[in-house]
Amino acid sequence: MPQYKAPLRDINFVLKNVLNANEHFASLAGREEVSEDLLDAILSEGAKFSENVLSPLNQVGDQEGCVWSEGGVKTPTGFKEAYQQFAEGGWPSMTADARFGGQGLPNSLGLVVTEMVSSACWAWGMYTGLSQSAARLLENYASEDLQNEYLPKMTDGTWGGTMCLTEPHCGSDLGILRTKAEANADGSYNVTGTKIFISGGEHDMMENIIHLVLARIDGAPAGTKGISLFLVPKFLPDADNNIGERNGVSCGSIEHKMGIKASATCVMNFDGAKGFLVGEENRGLQAMFHMMNSARLGTALQGLSAGEASFQGALEYARERLQMRSLSGPKNPEGPADPLIVHPDVRRMLLTQKALAEGSRAFIYWVAQLVDTFYFSGDEQARKDAEELSELLTPIAKAFVTETGLESANYGMQVFGGHGYISEWGMEQIVRDLRISTLYEGTTGIQALDLLGRKVMGTGGKQLMVFTKIIHKFCEENASNPELEPFISKLAELNKEWGEVTMKLGEKAMQNPDEVGAASVDYLMYSGYISLAYMWARMAAAAADGAADDEFLKAKLQTAKFYYDRLLPRTESHKLSMLNGADSLMEMPEEAFAF
Amino acid sequence: MPQYKAPLRDINFVLKNVLNANEHFASLAGREEVSEDLLDAILSEGAKFSENVLSPLNQVGDQEGCVWSEGGVKTPTGFKEAYQQFAEGGWPSMTADARFGGQGLPNSLGLVVTEMVSSACWAWGMYTGLSQSAARLLENYASEDLQNEYLPKMTDGTWGGTMCLTEPHCGSDLGILRTKAEANADGSYNVTGTKIFISGGEHDMMENIIHLVLARIDGAPAGTKGISLFLVPKFLPDADNNIGERNGVSCGSIEHKMGIKASATCVMNFDGAKGFLVGEENRGLQAMFHMMNSARLGTALQGLSAGEASFQGALEYARERLQMRSLSGPKNPEGPADPLIVHPDVRRMLLTQKALAEGSRAFIYWVAQLVDTFYFSGDEQARKDAEELSELLTPIAKAFVTETGLESANYGMQVFGGHGYISEWGMEQIVRDLRISTLYEGTTGIQALDLLGRKVMGTGGKQLMVFTKIIHKFCEENASNPELEPFISKLAELNKEWGEVTMKLGEKAMQNPDEVGAASVDYLMYSGYISLAYMWARMAAAAADGAADDEFLKAKLQTAKFYYDRLLPRTESHKLSMLNGADSLMEMPEEAFAF
Repeated sequence: MPQYKAPLRDINFVLKNVLNANEHFASLAGREEVSEDLLDAILSEGAKFSENVLSPLNQVGDQEGCVWSEGGVKTPTGFKEAYQQFAEGGWPSMTADARFGGQGLPNSLGLVVTEMVSSACWAWGMYTGLSQSAARLLENYASEDLQNEYLPKMTDGTWGGTMCLTEPHCGSDLGILRTKAEANADGSYNVTGTKIFISGGEHDMMENIIHLVLARIDGAPAGTKGISLFLVPKFLPDADNNIGERNGVSCGSIEHKMGIKASATCVMNFDGAKGFLVGEENRGLQAMFHMMNSARLGTALQGLSAGEASFQGALEYARERLQMRSLSGPKNPEGPADPLIVHPDVRRMLLTQKALAEGSRAFIYWVAQLVDTFYFSGDEQARKDAEELSELLTPIAKAFVTETGLESANYGMQVFGGHGYISEWGMEQIVRDLRISTLYEGTTGIQALDLLGRKVMGTGGKQLMVFTKIIHKFCEENASNPELEPFISKLAELNKEWGEVTMKLGEKAMQNPDEVGAASVDYLMYSGYISLAYMWARMAAAAADGAADDEFLKAKLQTAKFYYDRLLPRTESHKLSMLNGADSLMEMPEEAFAF
Repeated sequence: MPQYKAPLRDINFVLKNVLNANEHFASLAGREEVSEDLLDAILSEGAKFSENVLSPLNQVGDQEGCVWSEGGVKTPTGFKEAYQQFAEGGWPSMTADARFGGQGLPNSLGLVVTEMVSSACWAWGMYTGLSQSAARLLENYASEDLQNEYLPKMTDGTWGGTMCLTEPHCGSDLGILRTKAEANADGSYNVTGTKIFISGGEHDMMENIIHLVLARIDGAPAGTKGISLFLVPKFLPDADNNIGERNGVSCGSIEHKMGIKASATCVMNFDGAKGFLVGEENRGLQAMFHMMNSARLGTALQGLSAGEASFQGALEYARERLQMRSLSGPKNPEGPADPLIVHPDVRRMLLTQKALAEGSRAFIYWVAQLVDTFYFSGDEQARKDAEELSELLTPIAKAFVTETGLESANYGMQVFGGHGYISEWGMEQIVRDLRISTLYEGTTGIQALDLLGRKVMGTGGKQLMVFTKIIHKFCEENASNPELEPFISKLAELNKEWGEVTMKLGEKAMQNPDEVGAASVDYLMYSGYISLAYMWARMAAAAADGAADDEFLKAKLQTAKFYYDRLLPRTESHKLSMLNGADSLMEMPEEAFAF
């Protein structure tokens, strides 16, 4: 199992040299007090916790998995103890509102800690990540009474939370969900129905679990316009806000699945469970989208963090394993063979992993800053721009980073040869754990429809232009730097092409709405490669000055060149494929798919 | 778990309409007696056995896995019984030499049965597939005495076989292997060493296991020129060729791995085990390459068969699962939602699976015919051409079909959404089982070096030209058919480009040998897409005539169009990436990969 080591040099570079985190923090109302010292302390303590406490749990978690019984779900050895340490360290309160005891730090900073936690042990991090997302939702949408009742204990980590959307017959299609809520005289509701795929629906790590449940109030309109959101606790709080009576919600079973075996994926039965409306009636989806957007960015992080972990394992192996001689002459003449890392194709795989992880890190951190700005900036125009841009970029980050993260994790196995397939090495677990990321929180196909259908076509290209203008401006500003020339000229060319391709698709879609779905995934991947090209150009610009004397900065420029030379050409195939249109997808009658 | 259904209509189409199997069989000396009736009987019996006996074992095999004890390895419930049925049905003898009781049928026909077996339960098929490969090697390389002693029982399936290459410190790099062989006075050898990753090294399905072991005779030259091949049986035969004394070979443990859990992957300890030289001293690799080539084509088949199984599962689900409305209006207005298959992106995934499975089937069957021709044709020139072409195409088939098969299997999961991740559905098992295929029998990187370094550059492009000439001729012959025009013009263009790209890489490689490794995997994938484009054009040509009245043939043309529109553009990115050369791979010093 690879022992995780937090890539602090790169994290610092992205935060400080590329994204000017200090300036960013200073622009946020009520979140501006992040000193350089505090930032460094958070990074170093987060790294220590992830490396020393969580990383050793990752393989144990996979081997033991969760165990269901009538009495509840037992998490693997060490999970509960690690959580106690986490809660004692104050981590659950990091980005929580000060009103309920939170530290009020920016989400973009919380995300950096989550990256480290996730690389070390994704399955463990799901319990805490979803709990914090649930708390953020309640901070924004719940009544003051509910907030005062639930948020203090969710903030200090005593209680956790879940999101309950999926039902057996509906995943992507929430409009057809059936869970019912009947109003009681006291203003509460009785919630009845079955939810599946509920991560952390039941476990032994926290004292109470606060479920956020989508359900239909009796008599509500059909479809997505009749869905409300309810808070349904496992234990109802007593008058002192300690856990009291057990509520009518229980875990019927947990799923056996490909990976993230240490994360309990629960079937949750709500049997007239007492629930409390969060936000307005029939506006539950809007509130849930809040949580879903943060969960989407969190899932993007899974692609990055798994890719990083896989890269670390593969790099170590490639340096140590001796196999074959370099085609350009022995590099380790004293040994029986050369280390794997001398071979060009092994380098291609490692550099693909490196370029994707570092590019995705910069990309996700940037999107997280935009979300910060939307929530906390005092500048209205900045808020509005940040909202549009983060809405455009969230589906790209979610789908592109998980899809390419999966490629990266597979390369990590591939570097190990046959050993990559053996569980002991831990490389195959990374692939299995990560494989869920293109499925949950909206599949890649759903993200792609959201991007092309809603965000791009739905705004007449306006949201896209917010981004292409930023790229255009960046290219103009850096056009005269000879060190950056190869990046800037290619980026400018692709940025222009992005607009043209979008126009062409728009014209096709006017004739035939299926053209949107037919092009969508190619369009999303195309957009992802350009987005990362922008991040790599920004990183190259930040590295160019000092690169002569600093190996780290020099490696940044080399990795940028690798990205532009060897990965960015993929835009070309996606472009050709999507412009060939929907006909060859739609012509075949359903019966003719197989005989 | 998807219930496998053999795609007999497509298998028949490829054999009869595309590859003229009857003519082909008639051209093989001693293998010509395959009547249409016999062919049909074999296909239908093979389908029945695979569907009814093997398919139900697939999930059981994954859940139970193999169990090791001092006494041996227990295979999952039903594996042994299924093998008894297989042996009683005469299947192990199908392609074996008549001298030892075999039916002497062509290997290309055996491969069709293997495809069905593999789709139904790959892990089970590994025991029989490797056993048959071992028998074929002995038929070609062992002394008459050894053949008479071992082949009758290997032919009737009483005994099985393995190939023992890998050692803990060497996988791809066989030149550094350490297993030793000391000559005894009676002409036998004592073999000592440890082999790992030995599939079927120990199990309870057959009475005896005949290991084919690479080892170094005392005093042999270093490197690959000092490796010999030995037959080392688990039980030494007695004077009547029944099993006698236990030999000094034992299974020390089995590996825990990502998938193919029902296939025992063994650590084999040879402790002065009695072995018998197969073929000449120090020429062991040449003989083993025989087995490895057939194992490579067999592994290509794994990509196809898993892709087919995944396609079948995904298609069924896409027809039944109701989720969301079609963007172009409801297609199932009476129901709560439309079936998944109406959505363009779901169709894109299904058609990708279909186009890859059917294209790969035609491709692998064709390569298998070439191998037949090389072994059994009476026409010397035909044999020589077939040898060159099959050598060129084997690494393409192995790496391209497994890599794209993995993409296909992942799409199969993706169509299921979150359910794809749940073990019960069986879709994730297909991905886990298949994942080994790009690793064993030579990784994708090794295949790519074999293709570009040895087969293409190593023959000055001669082997490639055998193929490009065939494609050129095909394009000329079909240029005037308007129905085929879109395929032919694109294929001809790419065929020309293939030669040009190869020339450019050759020039670069003269300056820097690392250019070969740097381009190799992109080159292999590029070659694979063109190879499949050729197969799809041949299928379109075979289908064009009758397509007006036959839905199956019409679907062939539609799938060909899909392949050309949506998958073939991938050549473009691979071309651009590889032509950007080795610099961005080789410049970074090893220390700078991470800080």
